Amino acid sequence: MIKTDILIIGAGPTGLFAVFEAGLLKMKCHLIDALPQPGGQCTELYPKKPIYDIPGFPEILAGDLTKNLLEQCKQFEPGFTLGERADTIEKQEDGSFIVTTNKGTKHQAPVVAIAGGLGSFEPRKPLIANIGYFEDKGVEYFIKDPEIYRNKRVVISGGGDSALDWSIYLSDIAKEVTLIHRRTEFRGALDSVDKVQELKDAGKINLVTPAEVINIVGDHKVEAVVVSQALNIEKEFEIECDHFIPLFGLSPKLGPIAKWGLEIEKNAIVVNNALDYQTNIPGIFAIGDVNTYPGKLKLILCGFHEATLMCQAAYQILNPGKRYVLKYTTVSGVDGFDGTRKEAPKQVVKAID
Amino acid sequence: MIKTDILIIGAGPTGLFAVFEAGLLKMKCHLIDALPQPGGQCTELYPKKPIYDIPGFPEILAGDLTKNLLEQCKQFEPGFTLGERADTIEKQEDGSFIVTTNKGTKHQAPVVAIAGGLGSFEPRKPLIANIGYFEDKGVEYFIKDPEIYRNKRVVISGGGDSALDWSIYLSDIAKEVTLIHRRTEFRGALDSVDKVQELKDAGKINLVTPAEVINIVGDHKVEAVVVSQALNIEKEFEIECDHFIPLFGLSPKLGPIAKWGLEIEKNAIVVNNALDYQTNIPGIFAIGDVNTYPGKLKLILCGFHEATLMCQAAYQILNPGKRYVLKYTTVSGVDGFDGTRKEAPKQVVKAID
Ligand SMILES: Cc1cc2nc3c(=O)[nH]c(=O)nc-3n(C[C@H](O)[C@H](O)[C@H](O)COP(=O)(O)OP(=O)(O)OC[C@H]3O[C@@H](n4cnc5c(N)ncnc54)[C@H](O)[C@@H]3O)c2cc1C
Ligand SMILES: Cc1cc2nc3c(=O)[nH]c(=O)nc-3n(C[C@H](O)[C@H](O)[C@H](O)COP(=O)(O)OP(=O)(O)OC[C@H]3O[C@@H](n4cnc5c(N)ncnc54)[C@H](O)[C@@H]3O)c2cc1C
Repeated sequence: MIKTDILIIGAGPTGLFAVFEAGLLKMKCHLIDALPQPGGQCTELYPKKPIYDIPGFPEILAGDLTKNLLEQCKQFEPGFTLGERADTIEKQEDGSFIVTTNKGTKHQAPVVAIAGGLGSFEPRKPLIANIGYFEDKGVEYFIKDPEIYRNKRVVISGGGDSALDWSIYLSDIAKEVTLIHRRTEFRGALDSVDKVQELKDAGKINLVTPAEVINIVGDHKVEAVVVSQALNIEKEFEIECDHFIPLFGLSPKLGPIAKWGLEIEKNAIVVNNALDYQTNIPGIFAIGDVNTYPGKLKLILCGFHEATLMCQAAYQILNPGKRYVLKYTTVSGVDGFDGTRKEAPKQVVKAID
Repeated sequence: MIKTDILIIGAGPTGLFAVFEAGLLKMKCHLIDALPQPGGQCTELYPKKPIYDIPGFPEILAGDLTKNLLEQCKQFEPGFTLGERADTIEKQEDGSFIVTTNKGTKHQAPVVAIAGGLGSFEPRKPLIANIGYFEDKGVEYFIKDPEIYRNKRVVISGGGDSALDWSIYLSDIAKEVTLIHRRTEFRGALDSVDKVQELKDAGKINLVTPAEVINIVGDHKVEAVVVSQALNIEKEFEIECDHFIPLFGLSPKLGPIAKWGLEIEKNAIVVNNALDYQTNIPGIFAIGDVNTYPGKLKLILCGFHEATLMCQAAYQILNPGKRYVLKYTTVSGVDGFDGTRKEAPKQVVKAID
């Protein structure tokens, strides 16, 4: 059982900033995310694109924003359960909650903050009858740890940025990379498309287009994929491989959270924006894209504000009756749970003679 | 008469970010500030100190945050009335407001956003009977344009950062700089204190401590100050000069705004935080440190959120009945009023063969 002060569901920008604000109030956080890495939409959907409306950044790449937020909250040592979806929640007699993931990991906390964005990111799976059987046996829909592909034969399918970028990345690590796409055209950053062309010409990526994987072959684990290629005449053949990675994008689904007894409106969780972004269940808050209230804007900067106010309410739950006096970070510094301290250079009082 | 879409009172971080958000919605802003420069508390009180709780910045100097916010809103060409205090407001028949400053400058807009922080920054003035007479005749409480001191004889008094830093800065520009303080100890950044010591030793700053300016002498303009020095025996003497700049700090005063008929609580303006941060007077909003509501935190990041939501409501006032669809800056880019456009690099659809 993982125990923490605030259990945050969703490690997007809102969840990450909540870790920092909670830390300022001496509360520890643990985050659950269905994705293998933190950053939410920013990392999964547009890491290399610039955002122009983060206050104080005339321009910042979504991936860099995530990096900065991780750096900012590092001092408060957040725990992470990544690649798992929060599935169920149970209220305990002591008022705390137990949240269990689809992989059975259990988490307990007196406060739950849902920062689930548009929902848990779930992969779009290709229609291959036996694909379910091979999941975790050589079929992966995300790349969690590229090292597992070292010196392996990998088949990637897809025609967008993820398929392009991972083909490029793995061409350096894997023994063999085959990229399969049902069209000859790819959709992505010009750089990436050109780089794949170059690696293909250099014999470092095998390109099979227009084609589709229609079956998977193997005893207990992936040994080959069956490909149907439609060039002039249709033909079918096998490609031997250790891994098959379909990268057809992810779509967010509010999913299990919709069944937690929370008031839902337009696929989002209704909160009390006039105070602290609490839901209809005391102790459960919803912040960022996942919530709704009159005038709600699904913007990153709004999630930051909501996370900050939520932490004040969480503090009251964790420290009943204790009065909290707002301190400026500039004036009081920041004391990390890791023993580090950030602080402004002190002023001196010194004679000049 | 200066006309604009949203008239913003206060050019602190909240007011500056409001310019950007308004610009995204094609509304133009003009800002009034009592200070000679934008940035509010950040620039006036702690420009060289780090802030740790601006989302996405593990650390940023308050002065750099201001610079970034100015850069971010530059595309939307805000107008500025600086060094003037908004004193009166009158509602017009057409629903718009006319705001007049203490110097008589008039501004008209259908929407007024008060981003006045802790209030208009007013200088703490030394108790010198005839000082009022010499204001704008050689006595200045802020330094608006250092160039006016070129080759002039300047007397600065004060013992904090401003007095130290301006003495250093002007020692390079003015013909003569005298720094007067009623103690021998100064309070400021170690660097600054050491630098003044060095310039004093090099004969570039005249230091007179412990001492006070007790009178000003001059026909129509400052010609000299009378100094009382209390070293062993008290003595009085004159120092000839063209300018006398007392830098005893600024204190914010809600001041005239308190008489505009707005609902005030604890020296702040009550707003409807459940919707759009509007005050009790329709068309007048209050955002940032200047407002109050249940759970209010006087933090910069909260001002950013409030400014953003205020702009949505302002849009409805300026464009009645028009439906606004939120656009992501990443997806739609940012079109400045200055003709510039920021946008993410486009994706391509390109064959690999
Ligand atoms: C192309 C694009 C451009 C954009 N441009 C801008 C822009 O310019 N400015 C701007 O402000 N915003 C922009 N946005 C929106 C912005 O990305 C979102 O507002 C922001 O990501 C919301 O942050 P969040 O932390 O609330 O949620 P998300 O970033 O959506 O993160 C939520 C996380 O929660 C996880 N999760 C949800 N449910 C569960 C569960 N049950 N179990 C485990 N994990 C779960 C998800 O997997 C996800 O990682 C853009 C979005 C897109 C797609
Ligand atoms: C030492 C110190 C450290 C701080 N540290 C932090 C921190 O770490 N994190 C954080 O989030 N916040 C911090 N703050 C608070 C932060 O600076 C404020 O929250 C922020 O400046 C508020 O911004 P604002 O734009 O709402 O108001 P302000 O910055 O106060 O700006 C308001 C402006 O309005 C002008 N004004 C007011 N009335 C009038 C009028 N009638 N006419 C003309 N002009 C007028 C004023 O002159 C002023 O320039 C700190 C403050 C101080 C003093």
